[in-house]
Amino acid sequence: MKFLKDLKPGDRVADIYMCKHKLIATTKNGKEYYSVTLQDKTGIVDAKVWEPNSDGIDEFDDTDYIDVFGEVTSFNGALQINVKRARRCHEGEYDPALYLPVSKKDNDQMYKELLGIIGTIQNPYLKKLLEEFFVQDEAFITAFRKSSAAKTVHHAFIGGLLEHTLSVTKLCDYYASVYPRLNRDLLLTAAMCHDMGKTREISLFPVNDYTDEGQFIGHIVMGCEMVGEKARSIEGFPILLMQQLQHCILAHHGEYEYGSPKKPSIMEAVALNLADNTDAKMETFTELLENVQTPGWQGYNKFFETNIYETATDKL
Amino acid sequence: MKFLKDLKPGDRVADIYMCKHKLIATTKNGKEYYSVTLQDKTGIVDAKVWEPNSDGIDEFDDTDYIDVFGEVTSFNGALQINVKRARRCHEGEYDPALYLPVSKKDNDQMYKELLGIIGTIQNPYLKKLLEEFFVQDEAFITAFRKSSAAKTVHHAFIGGLLEHTLSVTKLCDYYASVYPRLNRDLLLTAAMCHDMGKTREISLFPVNDYTDEGQFIGHIVMGCEMVGEKARSIEGFPILLMQQLQHCILAHHGEYEYGSPKKPSIMEAVALNLADNTDAKMETFTELLENVQTPGWQGYNKFFETNIYETATDKL
Amino acid sequence: MKFLKDLKPGDRVADIYMCKHKLIATTKNGKEYYSVTLQDKTGIVDAKVWEPNSDGIDEFDDTDYIDVFGEVTSFNGALQINVKRARRCHEGEYDPALYLPVSKKDNDQMYKELLGIIGTIQNPYLKKLLEEFFVQDEAFITAFRKSSAAKTVHHAFIGGLLEHTLSVTKLCDYYASVYPRLNRDLLLTAAMCHDMGKTREISLFPVNDYTDEGQFIGHIVMGCEMVGEKARSIEGFPILLMQQLQHCILAHHGEYEYGSPKKPSIMEAVALNLADNTDAKMETFTELLENVQTPGWQGYNKFFETNIYETATDKL
Amino acid sequence: MKFLKDLKPGDRVADIYMCKHKLIATTKNGKEYYSVTLQDKTGIVDAKVWEPNSDGIDEFDDTDYIDVFGEVTSFNGALQINVKRARRCHEGEYDPALYLPVSKKDNDQMYKELLGIIGTIQNPYLKKLLEEFFVQDEAFITAFRKSSAAKTVHHAFIGGLLEHTLSVTKLCDYYASVYPRLNRDLLLTAAMCHDMGKTREISLFPVNDYTDEGQFIGHIVMGCEMVGEKARSIEGFPILLMQQLQHCILAHHGEYEYGSPKKPSIMEAVALNLADNTDAKMETFTELLENVQTPGWQGYNKFFETNIYETATDKL
Amino acid sequence: MKFLKDLKPGDRVADIYMCKHKLIATTKNGKEYYSVTLQDKTGIVDAKVWEPNSDGIDEFDDTDYIDVFGEVTSFNGALQINVKRARRCHEGEYDPALYLPVSKKDNDQMYKELLGIIGTIQNPYLKKLLEEFFVQDEAFITAFRKSSAAKTVHHAFIGGLLEHTLSVTKLCDYYASVYPRLNRDLLLTAAMCHDMGKTREISLFPVNDYTDEGQFIGHIVMGCEMVGEKARSIEGFPILLMQQLQHCILAHHGEYEYGSPKKPSIMEAVALNLADNTDAKMETFTELLENVQTPGWQGYNKFFETNIYETATDKL
Amino acid sequence: MKFLKDLKPGDRVADIYMCKHKLIATTKNGKEYYSVTLQDKTGIVDAKVWEPNSDGIDEFDDTDYIDVFGEVTSFNGALQINVKRARRCHEGEYDPALYLPVSKKDNDQMYKELLGIIGTIQNPYLKKLLEEFFVQDEAFITAFRKSSAAKTVHHAFIGGLLEHTLSVTKLCDYYASVYPRLNRDLLLTAAMCHDMGKTREISLFPVNDYTDEGQFIGHIVMGCEMVGEKARSIEGFPILLMQQLQHCILAHHGEYEYGSPKKPSIMEAVALNLADNTDAKMETFTELLENVQTPGWQGYNKFFETNIYETATDKL
Repeated sequence: MKFLKDLKPGDRVADIYMCKHKLIATTKNGKEYYSVTLQDKTGIVDAKVWEPNSDGIDEFDDTDYIDVFGEVTSFNGALQINVKRARRCHEGEYDPALYLPVSKKDNDQMYKELLGIIGTIQNPYLKKLLEEFFVQDEAFITAFRKSSAAKTVHHAFIGGLLEHTLSVTKLCDYYASVYPRLNRDLLLTAAMCHDMGKTREISLFPVNDYTDEGQFIGHIVMGCEMVGEKARSIEGFPILLMQQLQHCILAHHGEYEYGSPKKPSIMEAVALNLADNTDAKMETFTELLENVQTPGWQGYNKFFETNIYETATDKL
Repeated sequence: MKFLKDLKPGDRVADIYMCKHKLIATTKNGKEYYSVTLQDKTGIVDAKVWEPNSDGIDEFDDTDYIDVFGEVTSFNGALQINVKRARRCHEGEYDPALYLPVSKKDNDQMYKELLGIIGTIQNPYLKKLLEEFFVQDEAFITAFRKSSAAKTVHHAFIGGLLEHTLSVTKLCDYYASVYPRLNRDLLLTAAMCHDMGKTREISLFPVNDYTDEGQFIGHIVMGCEMVGEKARSIEGFPILLMQQLQHCILAHHGEYEYGSPKKPSIMEAVALNLADNTDAKMETFTELLENVQTPGWQGYNKFFETNIYETATDKL
Repeated sequence: MKFLKDLKPGDRVADIYMCKHKLIATTKNGKEYYSVTLQDKTGIVDAKVWEPNSDGIDEFDDTDYIDVFGEVTSFNGALQINVKRARRCHEGEYDPALYLPVSKKDNDQMYKELLGIIGTIQNPYLKKLLEEFFVQDEAFITAFRKSSAAKTVHHAFIGGLLEHTLSVTKLCDYYASVYPRLNRDLLLTAAMCHDMGKTREISLFPVNDYTDEGQFIGHIVMGCEMVGEKARSIEGFPILLMQQLQHCILAHHGEYEYGSPKKPSIMEAVALNLADNTDAKMETFTELLENVQTPGWQGYNKFFETNIYETATDKL
Repeated sequence: MKFLKDLKPGDRVADIYMCKHKLIATTKNGKEYYSVTLQDKTGIVDAKVWEPNSDGIDEFDDTDYIDVFGEVTSFNGALQINVKRARRCHEGEYDPALYLPVSKKDNDQMYKELLGIIGTIQNPYLKKLLEEFFVQDEAFITAFRKSSAAKTVHHAFIGGLLEHTLSVTKLCDYYASVYPRLNRDLLLTAAMCHDMGKTREISLFPVNDYTDEGQFIGHIVMGCEMVGEKARSIEGFPILLMQQLQHCILAHHGEYEYGSPKKPSIMEAVALNLADNTDAKMETFTELLENVQTPGWQGYNKFFETNIYETATDKL
Repeated sequence: MKFLKDLKPGDRVADIYMCKHKLIATTKNGKEYYSVTLQDKTGIVDAKVWEPNSDGIDEFDDTDYIDVFGEVTSFNGALQINVKRARRCHEGEYDPALYLPVSKKDNDQMYKELLGIIGTIQNPYLKKLLEEFFVQDEAFITAFRKSSAAKTVHHAFIGGLLEHTLSVTKLCDYYASVYPRLNRDLLLTAAMCHDMGKTREISLFPVNDYTDEGQFIGHIVMGCEMVGEKARSIEGFPILLMQQLQHCILAHHGEYEYGSPKKPSIMEAVALNLADNTDAKMETFTELLENVQTPGWQGYNKFFETNIYETATDKL
Repeated sequence: MKFLKDLKPGDRVADIYMCKHKLIATTKNGKEYYSVTLQDKTGIVDAKVWEPNSDGIDEFDDTDYIDVFGEVTSFNGALQINVKRARRCHEGEYDPALYLPVSKKDNDQMYKELLGIIGTIQNPYLKKLLEEFFVQDEAFITAFRKSSAAKTVHHAFIGGLLEHTLSVTKLCDYYASVYPRLNRDLLLTAAMCHDMGKTREISLFPVNDYTDEGQFIGHIVMGCEMVGEKARSIEGFPILLMQQLQHCILAHHGEYEYGSPKKPSIMEAVALNLADNTDAKMETFTELLENVQTPGWQGYNKFFETNIYETATDKL
């Protein structure tokens, strides 16, 4: 299979791609055509079906898989596929793993590692809370392992939420080993739960977009609520411990202007915010560098608010 | 009874006041004394018991009512009562209503007015939700009617939460009559529920201070959660309506930097934020003017970030 | 007449529209053509005259009314009219009311309502000031009733200034009935005068653009000056009252960064700022919703700084 | 005469000082006394009259001149005069120049210099406007020459407004000689008028405090209005020139958050803002250094937002 | 020679221009072409070589001088040259001074003026430091005289750094004559050195782009280091004087957010910041006005954050 | 020895303390006395010598060690020692380690650990640079190991700079193991050098205050310069590597407003900023908790901008 990121003007295309989005549009002359976004795991490309009513063009819709035959051109500096034939495929003809961005890390392995950390939690209430989510709640586990951690920005791929959560949890574990004032059980539980609201804030792939609930309530408040409900259902769960755990989730963006309704008041909340911020920035920079075409200066980057430079290829 | 706000240097005091706070302190010479804050509904005054171990001084503690005998002096520009005798009173000796700040408006009347507005809500789910809180939940009603709306700033008195809620709801009703795009049922329900989390954020008088839950979670998230739980318990309550109601509560501070985890996305949430802000500013200015000693310029005011001027006494 | 908002690609056009703006441009091949903005009360559309020197094309200029014959196409996602014939019309051939955006509310009715409120002002000096503007000054009344309240944003239509002023005044009247510390006469007078500088800041339709004076001085300072001159011309007008009235106008944007050279120092100025802000936000949201094509999420809105959602069509 | 800045604990005082402010206060024991602020041109000192009803104490009030006999002590690190005798003086007994802060520069000389610059203005309308203010309007000239440029901060002394205005005007003249795009006549006229509103914003010495008009309207808008009225009274004064002159005054603080309702739109307004800012900062730093007690680091300074260092005494 | 700023659609071009940048691109049909930016001292123009492999098209590269034959068209509102023939020229065929933006002021004259000011410095250490840079260091002098003061914004032309430095130095000299607390030697030395790091931050013309060192370290820190090294190499140079000089350079942007790692702590640093800011704003506005096509309002300007108006052409 | 933190009103004092600061002051009655700040490693206490000329009071000065005899009282809520006798001690009478705040961690052990990490650096130039500082430069090593990392805030004790540097370096090592895009050699070298300018910015204990150089230049620029000089002295040190190392130091505060003249452009600079920020916040919170008197809520904390809560003592 020829991946979308490897196409160049003049290429012929004859492969199966996912239709991420189809739009019916009209040319200047009033003629109808399809404007389609094709996707595989390496990216997306714009495609046009200029003769939608011709024989070779099946009916198809968003998230269908399409066997595309066409030519690659360049329009306004971007690639475009002129589609001559488009056949809608059936399950079995394609391997979905090739069409959706997916974590480079092994999902099973990451999940096992998370369970291992849960095993080290001493506090029985926190451990029980974690187990009810991550061991016993099948629906939650499925969603959690498939979710991305974002619509764009960083970790925007299948398994991204698990990968980010594990990375933040391990950073927190390192902090707990270095700064003895930290309550490790509270901190690591908060780390594992901090973004669990994202399982409901962003719908699963291939859609991966904000839900109504996500827009109206947001993953921070939803995560706080999920943890609160679970804790209240566990007999004897200390009220104050529940509130501190909820506080860590509410405060994990660190500042009001980043959507946290509380600033961190306890050391564990400060630590969680630092770990979350560290993993977000390191992963964002990593993803930037992975897409670098020419080494050296990459131009102004909005997220880092400065000109970015790629050092890895310097032989220093 | 002689109210605290009417005392002046040289007065003798022989009345019952509430002990808001008692501190055991030591003079430069190492002698122990009590530093006491006395309170009635007109304010607070500092008092000193220089001979705490003498015969006329009973043992007493915070929130006890004390029959005080002493003299008023002026120290560093503030009044101070030198307490000679202090007798701890028993229930029945005093009328608590005289000792706590209380809304000038009639509590029963305001509550009745609120119920009247609930009666005008058309949507059966929203009406049921309101009734379950404001008609059927005795514990909630008691707390709601006694709560202040703040620790300091505006509406910091018994009945303040009810007064503020009613005022915001009526402003919203006026908006709904003027701006027809507003969904009146949604807006007024949100108005009545917007600060209900304060019943748990701030403890009741005489303490009137932030609870742990209030500090860790905050009334915005707690109110959102209270409404969510209630709505989920009502059969058939539309999910989207619940989310919009919760959104109004989450967004009612209007800006992230004021502690709202969401900015208003629907017109009703914008309206609620405007009504809340309007009532807060009008009441704050009213309370400022009530305490004015000399007309004209009042000096720089932190809340309004400028020099404040009292116009009421100008005969213009 | 076929309104511009109803055009779609492929339509033929044969109606009179106003020429809002005409530009003489040159094609890549060096050929001259006209790029024209046509307007009616429902909006504007881009039009091209590719053969400006052909027989069917009259000479015409900005704000002329043109009888247009042509075809509608779509270019870069926007409509465009290719004009074949363009005849310049004479007064009498068209009804100007169809070509300019105009308040949905009846102008006479609104004006009468404003006069009614002036009749309720008790203070003789304030009443006289209002009457000299709104009853006796014909030129002012004409401009005031025709002005928009803005170039874009909210109330950007004929009668918009009157509609906004009336709405703010009535909000202030509601405040005065609820918050007894407010000086109703001062507040309502300030409300009626707060944007009168806009009669000179923005030129009348069809131009509706900033004047030199508007850009150099601005409606806030101009309104302050207009009120000051008028008050000084009324014998016995109390100086302090004039200054407070001017202060309300200067401070009505509430914050320095919104162009107010003073922050509100008196309760009436705070109230006026709240009413102005409330009406601006409610009207802006209303205009947004009026233009909604598909219900639900509308995307990021700059003015409200968040994603906007249309609730009216939810059947909840 | 012994100046206040030279007093030290233990000194006897037997000289005439101005009473800037007198307050009747009460001791802890309920005894009345006077708390008085004495002033001469070198500063102010706190004084107490513990026996206000004794024979040697005349009745006196704010801005009276008092022949004081007493002793200097130190209280909480500040000097205090215990007044034994206080005789109210009559005009002629004292030289007012010794009691009020006054510019170090010669007032006549500065005024003459300003008139000289007016003589160089070419535009007849601007020249006439300046002459009507600075040559013909006796009341204005008197106020302008006596005013301070501020209540505190910089140029807070008699003649300060003239000194600051002259300095800004000469800076602008230098700019005009270096940057040929500047319209010298417009710029220098704006410079001479930019703070003329201060003659009404701050009352004259010895009070030197904000007036009602100053607080409600502010010197920026008042200056704009003064210039506008004058220009409109001069036959043939070009409207656009008047607006540009007013714009320079409105925009001379440079930023909305510093109270300018307009940002500078023309090069002359930008230049005036730069000159005003330059003279303000240079004079503020100069006044700081004049009060330096020990060379080197002076501690954090609010105005400059950093630790200030005195370089003048370094022998480098 | 026909300058680029004078071209209009339909013109034929037959002159030598510099190739600022050449890009090999591909048409929609997959055909290769050159997209070239041509430059002369009056500006830049886009050019296309549609037949790069035809006989008349030499091989050429960035900064080569090209004898171009072609036609001027207009594309998307901008000029474009369709190049038919392109011959690479040899040194001697063209006058480089015609192809690079260059200060309007005489470079020798400005340099001589700078040396004249160095001659007036009294402090022997500062004088020696200046002479070692500006009199003895040939490489530095060459770079300093050729450098621009910016990549874009103001003074972005050959000689711009010298012109800006001289202008700032003379402003400082004026300040020193007016504000006697300023140490003229320190201030003028700092002024002459303040931007010397730009000789290394921005490469010389025709490239005139940020260097690696410029991006990683920046001219502020580089200038501080250059001055420090030089001072340490001069025997007896007072340490404190060196630090104050370095401080002036580090603090000359005035605020942290403009990239200064220190805020001005001494009066000379405050003065240098004011002079730098004044010259930058005056020159930026001057360059804006030089490019004005139609008088009056110029639209919103990002740098001045407001709508800009051109006054020079008003006959007032 | 009785430590200062354990004193309470009424205690007698008869021990040796360090005089951190002595001030000669005057009572209200004009009598001279000494106001002294005594220090040991547990804190500081105010002391007064009311009879400085009496027999038992030796002459002494800042940083002298004094054998104090006196009584502890409470004044305005703070402890105060009334000193009856004060004998100046000679070296040998006291153990300096008891009088200065010192890291709880073993200095030799930390230094050894740092050397161990240097041993793991692969790049020969970076390794050589580190060794020349941390292994060969005795004066630097001594200063580095004794310095605090701050005047107040966090790590304000002997060894604080070493402790902070080691902690940041180890955090960076953890990052390098988790985020493979990071250049470990560059990152760890930058971490070890990032605050080395503090050896010159803050003088050693017991003074521990900003130096002139520290105030004028700052540790960020000084550290950049130290690293630059060293790198240039090492033959063959790659220029680009040096610039990237300097960039990491310049950018390690992350934002302009925190005094960094560059924002992080390379991933290593981002990582260093995160590690520095993490260690600063964790250590600051740790030091806060160490000083907690009563568990639970600690009141508003300026650094964390919220109310702080101590979790460690909760038995959850």
